[in-house]
Amino acid sequence: MNRVYNFNPGPATLPLEVLKEVQAEFLNFDGSGMSIVEISHRSKPYEKVHEQTKADILQLMNLGDDYEVLFIQGGASLQFAMIPMNFATKEKFGSYAVTGIFSRNAYKEAEKLGVGKIAASTETENFSRVPRQDELKIESDAAYFHICYNNTIYGTEFHYTPEVGDVPLFADMSSDIFSRPVDFKKFSLIYAGVQKNLGPAGVVIVVAKKSLIEKSLETLPTMLRYDTFYKKNSLYNTPPVFSIYVVGKVVQWIKKYGGLAAMAQRNLKKATLLYGVIDESEGFYKGHAQKDSRSLMNVTFRLPNEELEKKFVAEALENNLSGIKGHRLVGGMRASIYNAMPLEGVEMLAEFMRKFRRKNLSSTSYQPQATS
Amino acid sequence: MNRVYNFNPGPATLPLEVLKEVQAEFLNFDGSGMSIVEISHRSKPYEKVHEQTKADILQLMNLGDDYEVLFIQGGASLQFAMIPMNFATKEKFGSYAVTGIFSRNAYKEAEKLGVGKIAASTETENFSRVPRQDELKIESDAAYFHICYNNTIYGTEFHYTPEVGDVPLFADMSSDIFSRPVDFKKFSLIYAGVQKNLGPAGVVIVVAKKSLIEKSLETLPTMLRYDTFYKKNSLYNTPPVFSIYVVGKVVQWIKKYGGLAAMAQRNLKKATLLYGVIDESEGFYKGHAQKDSRSLMNVTFRLPNEELEKKFVAEALENNLSGIKGHRLVGGMRASIYNAMPLEGVEMLAEFMRKFRRKNLSSTSYQPQATS
Repeated sequence: MNRVYNFNPGPATLPLEVLKEVQAEFLNFDGSGMSIVEISHRSKPYEKVHEQTKADILQLMNLGDDYEVLFIQGGASLQFAMIPMNFATKEKFGSYAVTGIFSRNAYKEAEKLGVGKIAASTETENFSRVPRQDELKIESDAAYFHICYNNTIYGTEFHYTPEVGDVPLFADMSSDIFSRPVDFKKFSLIYAGVQKNLGPAGVVIVVAKKSLIEKSLETLPTMLRYDTFYKKNSLYNTPPVFSIYVVGKVVQWIKKYGGLAAMAQRNLKKATLLYGVIDESEGFYKGHAQKDSRSLMNVTFRLPNEELEKKFVAEALENNLSGIKGHRLVGGMRASIYNAMPLEGVEMLAEFMRKFRRKNLSSTSYQPQATS
Repeated sequence: MNRVYNFNPGPATLPLEVLKEVQAEFLNFDGSGMSIVEISHRSKPYEKVHEQTKADILQLMNLGDDYEVLFIQGGASLQFAMIPMNFATKEKFGSYAVTGIFSRNAYKEAEKLGVGKIAASTETENFSRVPRQDELKIESDAAYFHICYNNTIYGTEFHYTPEVGDVPLFADMSSDIFSRPVDFKKFSLIYAGVQKNLGPAGVVIVVAKKSLIEKSLETLPTMLRYDTFYKKNSLYNTPPVFSIYVVGKVVQWIKKYGGLAAMAQRNLKKATLLYGVIDESEGFYKGHAQKDSRSLMNVTFRLPNEELEKKFVAEALENNLSGIKGHRLVGGMRASIYNAMPLEGVEMLAEFMRKFRRKNLSSTSYQPQATS
């Protein structure tokens, strides 16, 4: 059916098995005689989807009854505003690690309200790494400490969970949620726009300690209060039914294929393949991320010059490898290899990278370098 | 394929022709080798969808280049907050007609900010009608006058466009957008959650005068500023691609079948059928809405007692007529007969209503009454 390998950063590739299921039942969901996109969000068949998805998410995260799953629209970008509006004050600041564009945007929304502080930033290094624990300056009375776990644009990822004492730990996991086991209990609030690792753009899953979200400021607009979503089970108004439904199927797909441990194993194998080609290329491919911050989800690298980069993108596409062009802030290439990217796709890309290097070694002014 | 007639108020029935198209191309959109739910929002195939949908919407509304179409998440409920945050001040209040739950919620968000005034309310009449022009108390220096054009829960609808002088006219048209021609040029801002007449829940279309939205308050959160959406063509962050894509197809379906005039003709025919049965029932069926405010989209009516109402819902379902139960605030029945509800569905419901009345006339304490 002429499907390509889709290395886009998000919206991104989804499991073909899930897409086929969605397609098969698209005109008549669960015997309702309606499409999932026509069904009432107050109906029994939808309720089943809603509750099952919430339960499966908590199960995957190994979280108990003290956490709640919310479905909120507006993307992670709206969370950037909701978080300081709900939790930070002029007395208790929100503390931020700035490790890329999205975490910087998160900080900026708090700054706009006069309630944000930077605990660490790697901006001067063009966000080529995340900060080490010893670099984090978190005040003990901070309202929360916020990190972006994986930085899609730069291809960096936290490989440790920051120690924050009694400060509640918040994380934007939009681009690596459910890619590997994490000790989620260390977090008070985790959120993820689903369009990278979980489903169709249009919903953010927020998983938070109930004690944190059961009561919000009365003065906030209804739709910006976490307690609106908590008290009404994310059904205060019509939720984005289709996105939640597909997320539910993807979460079941993750469980079926072994859960987070199995995802991690496969994702590590895929990332290792690509970083291996980069490291063995004698400098033909240059990774953007420093090695200890390398993302398992977004592999960013440059070629010797922009002409070769253009050629790489074009020839990759001829080989059914699509969406490989990097973000303009980093340049070069970015291979996004989320859960749903099959190993075969990454093997094909690795093979293509090797061939491309061999073919173009002599045609450029590039000089092989000793690998660092 | 066992599809039912779906009278739900939203999410609601969509054109089967559109659903079949979505299903057919679900694994490979426009030759991209990806599903529409996997495709990048920065890609050419999506750009085509985005731009075509915007253009088709403006064309259907007969609006020119001085208006802009925005796609915003969060439902109409988030618009209730964004509108006063962006446009009202303590000096220039937002003025509201309160004609049902949603318009009251819209007012409440302005009230919370201390910037809302009620221009008219029909709450004491249980929202059985919309106010007349002569009842609207709009101050000439109001920031805007806000109405909900069609009240889904109560089954009432404005059958005139309020005269507001120089005050900008704003309307929530979530439940009757594109059901009939309206002189949209009289409005400064129109918005509609799409899940009733246009597509899958998850996006609100906002159509506004460019002059109104080109510059927002710097102090507002980024995602609550209309100018964020305007300047970035609703692509500041990932839009709800799938919802927009289906809306695009539904809008094309409307154009294909004759545009708003043809929709109006068919919708009038459908509504007339049901109101006819109600009016001829000698009081067995009692409409909630007063006659001059009757909605063409949501036909609300009660039966002689709650026992009969339960029986009605159950037997309707046995006849493949689904989603007919009314909102608890009105009780009884509500038949939502949006654009996509085929005439045959309404004919079947009308026939069912006649039969149900005949069968149950004698079995109750109900006494026929002279029709008013």
